[in-house]
Amino acid sequence: MEDFKPYYAVIFTSIQNQNIDGYSEMALKIERLAKQQSGFLGIESARNDIGITVSYWESLEAIQNWKQHSEHLIAQKKGIKDWYSRYKVRICRVEREYEFIK
Amino acid sequence: MEDFKPYYAVIFTSIQNQNIDGYSEMALKIERLAKQQSGFLGIESARNDIGITVSYWESLEAIQNWKQHSEHLIAQKKGIKDWYSRYKVRICRVEREYEFIK
Repeated sequence: MEDFKPYYAVIFTSIQNQNIDGYSEMALKIERLAKQQSGFLGIESARNDIGITVSYWESLEAIQNWKQHSEHLIAQKKGIKDWYSRYKVRICRVEREYEFIK
Repeated sequence: MEDFKPYYAVIFTSIQNQNIDGYSEMALKIERLAKQQSGFLGIESARNDIGITVSYWESLEAIQNWKQHSEHLIAQKKGIKDWYSRYKVRICRVEREYEFIK
């Protein structure tokens, strides 16, 4: 714990519309692109009634750059127009962590 | 944004074992109990290959109290013994948020 270096998490929670034509392709493309960004650390997703995607980043600047990435902006607009009935984004500073591995 | 009051998120990600007898009942019980805790703000969950549960809290103290709650401690032990092959807990400070609602 002593060497822990804080990093950032973006918690993206969403409810999708019934019709999400084109969503999977875009989600895959955007996830691939995210992984290539400077400061990207990881991404985890799950969806049932609600979708939760958490991406991890080295800095707020990396998050800001990714938010403004041209391809990502297109995806965000499309998401608002066609795929999501609601979503929420939380920018968080990870202050502590621990894990269990069997 | 100007009135935004920081709060905390606990990101719990997990991989479950094949056999998770008794898990659903315990998960339900623990979620109900969490909702009764002082400082609890909300909880969201989804699971596919990976499970992601994010709970929201007013303070680090509220998170610490919940972590040490006797019934929760029993659930944590059982989780390590029987249900999870791995999990990770991240304690985060939510610094900014925005949302879209259609």
